[in-house]
Amino acid sequence: MKIAVFAGDGIGPEVTAQALRVLDEMSLPGLTRFEGDVGAAAYRRHGHPLPEETLEMARAADAVLFGAVGDFTCDDLPRHLRPEQAILGLRSELGLFANLRPAAGFSGLEHLSSLKPEVARSIDLLVVRELNGDVYFGDKGERDSAGGREGWDAMSYNEAEVRRIADTAFRAAMGRGKKLTSVDKANVLETSRIWRETVIEVAREYPEVALDHMYVDNAAMQLVKSPGQFDTIVTGNLFGDILSDQASACVGSIGLLASASLGERRTDFGTFGLYEPIHGSAPDIAGQGKANPIAAILSLAMLLRHSLGREEEAMRIERAVEGILAEGVFGGDLGGTASTGEIGDAIVRKLL
Amino acid sequence: MKIAVFAGDGIGPEVTAQALRVLDEMSLPGLTRFEGDVGAAAYRRHGHPLPEETLEMARAADAVLFGAVGDFTCDDLPRHLRPEQAILGLRSELGLFANLRPAAGFSGLEHLSSLKPEVARSIDLLVVRELNGDVYFGDKGERDSAGGREGWDAMSYNEAEVRRIADTAFRAAMGRGKKLTSVDKANVLETSRIWRETVIEVAREYPEVALDHMYVDNAAMQLVKSPGQFDTIVTGNLFGDILSDQASACVGSIGLLASASLGERRTDFGTFGLYEPIHGSAPDIAGQGKANPIAAILSLAMLLRHSLGREEEAMRIERAVEGILAEGVFGGDLGGTASTGEIGDAIVRKLL
Ligand SMILES: CC(C)[C@H](C(=O)O)[C@@H](O)C(=O)O
Ligand SMILES: CC(C)[C@H](C(=O)O)[C@@H](O)C(=O)O
Repeated sequence: MKIAVFAGDGIGPEVTAQALRVLDEMSLPGLTRFEGDVGAAAYRRHGHPLPEETLEMARAADAVLFGAVGDFTCDDLPRHLRPEQAILGLRSELGLFANLRPAAGFSGLEHLSSLKPEVARSIDLLVVRELNGDVYFGDKGERDSAGGREGWDAMSYNEAEVRRIADTAFRAAMGRGKKLTSVDKANVLETSRIWRETVIEVAREYPEVALDHMYVDNAAMQLVKSPGQFDTIVTGNLFGDILSDQASACVGSIGLLASASLGERRTDFGTFGLYEPIHGSAPDIAGQGKANPIAAILSLAMLLRHSLGREEEAMRIERAVEGILAEGVFGGDLGGTASTGEIGDAIVRKLL
Repeated sequence: MKIAVFAGDGIGPEVTAQALRVLDEMSLPGLTRFEGDVGAAAYRRHGHPLPEETLEMARAADAVLFGAVGDFTCDDLPRHLRPEQAILGLRSELGLFANLRPAAGFSGLEHLSSLKPEVARSIDLLVVRELNGDVYFGDKGERDSAGGREGWDAMSYNEAEVRRIADTAFRAAMGRGKKLTSVDKANVLETSRIWRETVIEVAREYPEVALDHMYVDNAAMQLVKSPGQFDTIVTGNLFGDILSDQASACVGSIGLLASASLGERRTDFGTFGLYEPIHGSAPDIAGQGKANPIAAILSLAMLLRHSLGREEEAMRIERAVEGILAEGVFGGDLGGTASTGEIGDAIVRKLL
């Protein structure tokens, strides 16, 4: 078993360090890990946010544990050298087409949400976002027009792309509440029309799952109004970017939320994937021991589950996290005083 | 002064009828009004959701008062005959490029929001959405691809399009808190890069307005987390569709929110525009006297203000609405028992 670790920038290294302590604690036999550079750190060292060596390391691994990228030094770089290109490059180069973003309230932490506690408590959903297509990866550029310079981007989805992500979403829904909401803008977009028609086709293979369709504007409304109605949501790259962040904000405690980006490649133990906290690199608090490592640690749990087939270890970690939260071991983001290292300590102790 | 009234489908006619009672009460000298067919009603009568006569009526008017469109009978029609084409057609044919969607909490009604009362109370923002461009009106279609049928849509903005809406937004911000947040996805889209560069250029003409930029995913997050931070938001057609609905949901009382869609054409008294409630046609409750006419009545107030230069009458209506809400005249949507007509009665009485 090989894990590639890309800690990245800002608080990335310090939260990833705690996840690695937890991993060490598991003492998995035959596990090796490699560390690679990404983001601003990689740009400084190699002149590119996603060096070829990093990519090779990922290709040779069963899974990638990712921290976060981005810092103030990169604001003025041209887009192709900016840290977020590392993320986009990894997604496309590694064929990571399925982003899984669970959003669920942590009991006892409802007060952290800006939603009413009873609404926050009702949230238990999974957003399945397509990551390899849509307007993200279409042709794009600038041209002259009668109205001056014009920026343009091509949006599209074909049946094969939609089938693949729909399949992932239906399977995820089968393991959850068997309710899938497909989000599109089929009243305006041809891309969405193909999306919807294909999702309906794939649904035939999953007769147990109740499928419905929602326009993206309505979904954004419903996610605020009554997020408890959702079980599994499947949507394209752009709408998924927006809705998954919105769903996380509804939960309130963003320092606790993890994500998985899965590819098609099967490993000996599961599916190749990249795992990362949903929070960013937060350069303003980097290096101060203020970052919450829980999202990174829960990303590791997802890695163990999906890429290494280690459900038992994944659950051990998740229980340990729940345990210390129940005991009130909170970092500053949750209204407590525990440092990054102290939270890591507490989780490691709980594992025993 | 000429007003075209397009009541449309579902609850559209009954809420519009109450708005017209209020308008009659104002006894504006020299005002004439015309009624035209749109939506499913127009399709049934004329075979098209936006007949040429309706369009002509709008062109000849100083303003359009719009109800809502859409009902169950249209679900199986091809897209170009569906009721929403009436909305899209009016926007493009009439050059309605600026959608103004105020979202503000009504004091005493915070409990209707799913947000905590103190968060709901803090909301007082205006979304300025571009309505004539973006992926809505670009080329689109279906083609064959290696992955089967592929749906595609062209997204774009040019400098002239952005300048026009940015100008509207800066002027709106000047009349509010002098803070403008431009929302885009400039880390991924070329369309957004031109958008952002142009907004920055226009900002030079409005040195008093504090401008910031936010990625759309972050904006969706912040609108839940701390909506009170926003004053005026300007964004493109697609992001505006999503964020303005999200903002309305944050307020909670959707039956109270109105919107204006302004064109470039100047009338003798202001700017040509179309005014409508943000709620839809709600065919399930149509004809039962259950619909809340307040959004339609507040749409009329916006019409009087922006298109007819009647600030005084607009404020009279807005005060009357606040008055009856303070007295607890609530329809079913606000937890009360007042019918559509009773709410209209109460507002008309308050005007006196
Ligand atoms: C950094 C950015 C390109 C990226 C995206 O838009 O996908 C991010 O917002 C995310 O959701 O991972
Ligand atoms: C009906 C639909 C085409 C329309 C849009 O997407 O603009 C609606 O959602 C709106 O916001 O007015």
